[in-house]
Amino acid sequence: MPIITMLTDFGTTDPYVGELRGVLLSRAPGVTLVDLTHDLSPGNIPAAAYILGRAWTQFPDDTIHLVVVDPGVGTRRRAIAFELSTHMFVGPDNGVFSTLPGLERATVVELPILESAAPTFHGRDVFAPAAAALACGKALSTLGPPFEGSLVRFQTAAVRRDEMKVTGVVVYVDRFGNLLTNLTGSDVAGCTGIEVSGQTAGPVRNTFGDVPPGGSVVYVGSGGTVEIAVREGSAARRFDAGVGSRVRAVFA
Amino acid sequence: MPIITMLTDFGTTDPYVGELRGVLLSRAPGVTLVDLTHDLSPGNIPAAAYILGRAWTQFPDDTIHLVVVDPGVGTRRRAIAFELSTHMFVGPDNGVFSTLPGLERATVVELPILESAAPTFHGRDVFAPAAAALACGKALSTLGPPFEGSLVRFQTAAVRRDEMKVTGVVVYVDRFGNLLTNLTGSDVAGCTGIEVSGQTAGPVRNTFGDVPPGGSVVYVGSGGTVEIAVREGSAARRFDAGVGSRVRAVFA
Amino acid sequence: MPIITMLTDFGTTDPYVGELRGVLLSRAPGVTLVDLTHDLSPGNIPAAAYILGRAWTQFPDDTIHLVVVDPGVGTRRRAIAFELSTHMFVGPDNGVFSTLPGLERATVVELPILESAAPTFHGRDVFAPAAAALACGKALSTLGPPFEGSLVRFQTAAVRRDEMKVTGVVVYVDRFGNLLTNLTGSDVAGCTGIEVSGQTAGPVRNTFGDVPPGGSVVYVGSGGTVEIAVREGSAARRFDAGVGSRVRAVFA
Repeated sequence: MPIITMLTDFGTTDPYVGELRGVLLSRAPGVTLVDLTHDLSPGNIPAAAYILGRAWTQFPDDTIHLVVVDPGVGTRRRAIAFELSTHMFVGPDNGVFSTLPGLERATVVELPILESAAPTFHGRDVFAPAAAALACGKALSTLGPPFEGSLVRFQTAAVRRDEMKVTGVVVYVDRFGNLLTNLTGSDVAGCTGIEVSGQTAGPVRNTFGDVPPGGSVVYVGSGGTVEIAVREGSAARRFDAGVGSRVRAVFA
Repeated sequence: MPIITMLTDFGTTDPYVGELRGVLLSRAPGVTLVDLTHDLSPGNIPAAAYILGRAWTQFPDDTIHLVVVDPGVGTRRRAIAFELSTHMFVGPDNGVFSTLPGLERATVVELPILESAAPTFHGRDVFAPAAAALACGKALSTLGPPFEGSLVRFQTAAVRRDEMKVTGVVVYVDRFGNLLTNLTGSDVAGCTGIEVSGQTAGPVRNTFGDVPPGGSVVYVGSGGTVEIAVREGSAARRFDAGVGSRVRAVFA
Repeated sequence: MPIITMLTDFGTTDPYVGELRGVLLSRAPGVTLVDLTHDLSPGNIPAAAYILGRAWTQFPDDTIHLVVVDPGVGTRRRAIAFELSTHMFVGPDNGVFSTLPGLERATVVELPILESAAPTFHGRDVFAPAAAALACGKALSTLGPPFEGSLVRFQTAAVRRDEMKVTGVVVYVDRFGNLLTNLTGSDVAGCTGIEVSGQTAGPVRNTFGDVPPGGSVVYVGSGGTVEIAVREGSAARRFDAGVGSRVRAVFA
């Protein structure tokens, strides 16, 4: 049996994740369930997309990724399933899949919403049954008709590379308060730091321990883009910055 | 090997859940462990009962449900195990099983407390070994003598249905701040809203997206009873309500 | 396939634990993953050591314990793997293994850090691959050269036993606010209570329920050492105490 990963904003206190797990294990006995996270802030589609975009590549072929960050549940937003690069994905068509490379070329089906599905819990009643069916080897095409139209994608502000000036944005803030940007390593090659909220973070180093405790540091993070951290502290607090904050590479 | 679900108030930071998992996997190799939640507020028996009452039905036959919300651990409250509708349940006799339909007809055994059990951690030393024994196929009757007397059950205030007036209570508040009541869909059929804490929530619709952001909505929730939500907000905060708050269906 | 336990300070919101799980399941298909915790405060090495020191003994032979509480990631701190009492351990050489009995006699290898490893995420790129290799049956000696020198260990203040006076410290505080000390049951035999922060906690009893709600109680905890609790309350708050607070057995 394959792996099903789960990425939701349900939190871990309420019955919802347990019900999801029960449906998956009832319909796909022997499947391996893996939590990506359930702790996203409610309806945080950009964070869901960021996490999915990083984590899915670490899983083996045939893994099914079930994403239920779904503030529009029960409305006319569409429910989808698709295959991409030997992985399968199931969730709402609301932008949560925006970060997947080649998404525009995926073969997508639209999942029907049965009358019996609770209008506030498609995770349990629509998406989990679809993911379980895929885990049991059912063909994608049997789950619903081909998706018509184009998928919802949100746009992250692109990096702007002018002469002597490279600007980007913070795309994610992690629990340590590290600011993850969309700048690449080559964007900051030779720069002395990163300007954010009117202050300058830096120097550019390899890791936290390369600066003294309390010092800020700029480095190419484990996700492949530039990050700003404060050793043993929070860069988000130090620089009063968050998702969407502008960042600019500073050259001497 | 069957599934063992876990429902505790241990939190996920301390060693306790890890120790529980270790005991279960040592004594029932190959068992599938599933977290319902570990994040209940300490000793919150009504929340445990609510979550168990919803989630257990989603699991396949022969699942074993291990509940350790146990503020009376080490005192004279009794330890029990029983079978109900092809599922097994293990935990303290303190009301956590109150929501299971047909509980009064279950065949219950009383688990002996060995001298060696830590008086503050029956989860690890009494309940987990019992759950693991059941997972390994041991008969319920071998775990202890028949339970004498009647099980502890807590009572939720019943819905009162007078002429022109239907009143109930909030039985659970989820992480989104949604107020889950004990009113049924037919209780609110034709009503214009729900009165709670002197304010009126509504209209009655299908889902969150049927009202504008910030608006309140009344709907039949995924647990089968009436809920009150605020779209992209918290009904608990908006209406200053919580578990036990009275709610009343309002007819024009 | 064996079990791999995970003990990190990554939190459960960010992509990091998901990536770790993906690497482990990709490289060791069929392995059973178990969370000890991911919710340690960032860089909390003493708490990691305390939790590991309790939980590992509950797991079956051949379990692999992956510990990634690693504030010095990417610096010259060393990466290690070793076998002890039929279990395997993988993590940074920074004190997280301090509580393991017999650690000084373990055969330890030093894990090489590949050029391709992200300097801020050895959990994913160094430790998880090593744990997965062990899970697949690779010999410890193939993972790296023998470790030269002595492992980093932090010291907990020892219990001082003078005539008529026994003093120790709080070594861990759990989510309930219970104060877990390094005193043993025989240290408190016959004492009337424990002095902490200028107040006296007690009496000495078996469990929480042996005192009235709001009362404090001293007991031998499930980890084998003396604990201080407040029934239905928090001893940490009541006594304004935390890890490192001095405690003293009081005899009448």
